[in-house]
Amino acid sequence: MPLSQDAIAAITAAVDAQFEDQVDFLQDIVRAPSLRGEEAGVQGIVEKALKGRGYDVETYPLDVAVLKDHPAYSPATIDYADTFNVAGRKTPATSSGRSLILNAHVDVVPTANPDFWTHPPFSATRVGDWLYGRGAGDMKAGLTANLFAVDAIEAAGFRLQAPLEVQSVIDEEVTGNGTAAAIQRGARADAVLIPEPTDEELTYANSGVIKFRITVQGVPAHPREPDSGLSAIEAAFLVIKELRGLEARWNAERLDHAGFDKLSNPASMNIGTISGGEWQSSIPFECTFEGRIGFYPGDRPEDRMAAFEQALNGLGSLDPRLEKANPRLEWTGTCQAGYRLAEGTDAEKLLAAAHGAVAGTSLQRSIMACYLDAALYMNHCGIPSLTYGPLSKNIHGIDECVSLPSLKRVTKTIALFTAGWCGIAPE
Amino acid sequence: MPLSQDAIAAITAAVDAQFEDQVDFLQDIVRAPSLRGEEAGVQGIVEKALKGRGYDVETYPLDVAVLKDHPAYSPATIDYADTFNVAGRKTPATSSGRSLILNAHVDVVPTANPDFWTHPPFSATRVGDWLYGRGAGDMKAGLTANLFAVDAIEAAGFRLQAPLEVQSVIDEEVTGNGTAAAIQRGARADAVLIPEPTDEELTYANSGVIKFRITVQGVPAHPREPDSGLSAIEAAFLVIKELRGLEARWNAERLDHAGFDKLSNPASMNIGTISGGEWQSSIPFECTFEGRIGFYPGDRPEDRMAAFEQALNGLGSLDPRLEKANPRLEWTGTCQAGYRLAEGTDAEKLLAAAHGAVAGTSLQRSIMACYLDAALYMNHCGIPSLTYGPLSKNIHGIDECVSLPSLKRVTKTIALFTAGWCGIAPE
Repeated sequence: MPLSQDAIAAITAAVDAQFEDQVDFLQDIVRAPSLRGEEAGVQGIVEKALKGRGYDVETYPLDVAVLKDHPAYSPATIDYADTFNVAGRKTPATSSGRSLILNAHVDVVPTANPDFWTHPPFSATRVGDWLYGRGAGDMKAGLTANLFAVDAIEAAGFRLQAPLEVQSVIDEEVTGNGTAAAIQRGARADAVLIPEPTDEELTYANSGVIKFRITVQGVPAHPREPDSGLSAIEAAFLVIKELRGLEARWNAERLDHAGFDKLSNPASMNIGTISGGEWQSSIPFECTFEGRIGFYPGDRPEDRMAAFEQALNGLGSLDPRLEKANPRLEWTGTCQAGYRLAEGTDAEKLLAAAHGAVAGTSLQRSIMACYLDAALYMNHCGIPSLTYGPLSKNIHGIDECVSLPSLKRVTKTIALFTAGWCGIAPE
Repeated sequence: MPLSQDAIAAITAAVDAQFEDQVDFLQDIVRAPSLRGEEAGVQGIVEKALKGRGYDVETYPLDVAVLKDHPAYSPATIDYADTFNVAGRKTPATSSGRSLILNAHVDVVPTANPDFWTHPPFSATRVGDWLYGRGAGDMKAGLTANLFAVDAIEAAGFRLQAPLEVQSVIDEEVTGNGTAAAIQRGARADAVLIPEPTDEELTYANSGVIKFRITVQGVPAHPREPDSGLSAIEAAFLVIKELRGLEARWNAERLDHAGFDKLSNPASMNIGTISGGEWQSSIPFECTFEGRIGFYPGDRPEDRMAAFEQALNGLGSLDPRLEKANPRLEWTGTCQAGYRLAEGTDAEKLLAAAHGAVAGTSLQRSIMACYLDAALYMNHCGIPSLTYGPLSKNIHGIDECVSLPSLKRVTKTIALFTAGWCGIAPE
């Protein structure tokens, strides 16, 4: 049901009218540092915001014992003892439209050395058109867009005609288990929208991702007998170098995957952490590194995990120095397939129309070669899922920031999409 | 004054007679884990042992404020709050011989993963001729040799004719500041003997050593934009690779240094620890590694430190990827010159005679390309210093152990050397 021009004007005007409140709220939630495991503070703010808006609010912990057999589950590394998911629901007495889930995650990645930030990473400093802070782009701005989009519809005098669930989930950055828990508890809808920072493009596909921890061994020796030992740090370097060969082979497969063939490095093996040795003048005995590697929609993660493990166990034949390295592999974090949203879905058409009405441009489709919670709704529930959000810079980096004009446009687009998807009626 | 055959027989018989007590004591002190900073427990045992033997015992803390301007000082990284040096002195009413310092350090390096040890690293398990444990060889066996050598002289009915100081020092493994503190407080003698695990050879030279910590930077980025970042872990790998070039150049100089020319890797740059990144799926922003590199007796550490710093700062011209790596260098631990004991000293001649009397072989001279506390007495006090101790295996490694028959021989050799050097008279 297309929106009238009057409805479009009223809803977008309402986004404009409340935008300073939206930025204030964004600053509030950026200032609640929500590193993995520490999301309770920001979730409390979101819970209160939903209750204040008249949602039926449910909060619930993640129970690994229940969750671990669900296919959307990935191996957790940081426990869920002190944190929880939040869901806010609005359900009309009778439904004439299509139901919708608006999802956002609240966990953020570490800041790296805060001394290198122009503004302290949790200060939520506003400079001109940009709001700075860890999580500003990824993805607390998107969370405010979800909330204030619905606010704008209501402020414009309309009521949604189909069930809406606003989800504020934890642990997207390690595993995706926040959204997995929502799915396990039964969250379903006719579409899902997740305003990750996509620079106002529609992410129509992502990569599958597996995350690993590898510990290699050296043979310790005293520096006066350097030839008697093998350094675990050197062994780690050699293992990583050889795994770059696997990455190159996986990258070479991109030619068989439309869209991915345009990316230079879709597999993108990132070594994110390393820790080895314990003494300056001892040859290090163990070295552990953690990372992630990607693959293509349609690939089964278990097949990629098996191939990765096989490659790791075969390194001794590539480099005899690695015969004693004895690599020990653990899966730690996301182990999920990628997705691809078919062209021509109703959801995408409606989003493109809303985007066009607001931005005056056609909606660009692009790929993100990383894990996205949309993958869980696409792959495990068959729900068309739109990842679409504001322009940001330096996500996961120093001086992360989000464009406020872009956030305003995205909030309008989400409002128009939500109104059009669920249907609206006057209050 | 050569010892009589009767004196030799009586002293060595006394070592035999008390040897099971010596092994018991060695087990006691191996079972007192004395990682750097945690030496107080074992020092308490040594203090009690010295007092029980009638030494004048002094214990004293290391005061960096006092010590830091002494040339024997090296930059400390672990504080000295809860630990102390122990000295035990025996001073005859009148002295007719030459004074002697018997020195040993009690700090030990970490165990690496204890699961890989055949016996728990602080269990001091005796299996046949070997005693296993972290510190068994390096160098708690040597400490018992010092103590029980003097015991044997006394048990044989003799009294030393010159001042003797038995030193039990901390922090040889990071800096050498335990011995530096003894020197700063005025410890001097006509010779020093340190029973490091030298496999019953005389270490006549060692390498100078500098120890460093280097932090390199990357440029963080999200995995979906892999080309936008530089991984600090990759940067660390590249920096280490380039520093191997410096190591090769320093190794090439060995041809100008007699004795060192026989070693394959006298510079021996060891990268002992590494730590970088904080998130599997973020490109790491900082990576820190620690290590040591050696050079030759006669070289000034400050010149080598300057050359090292210059090489580090010039890496961007060797590899443009390192232009942004911005390596930050700290000196953390030993920064000391090497030493070379001239041939033909009275001390060496007497040690060779004692060794010959006990072992029946000629004393071999060899080099240790690592830091030794003897360097401080040689370079800062001009005292001839003998590093000579028992056969051991796997020092700084897994399953460190010391040979008990070798320890018995070394104890006899030290007893005969001490008796000959200081002179003895009947009680």
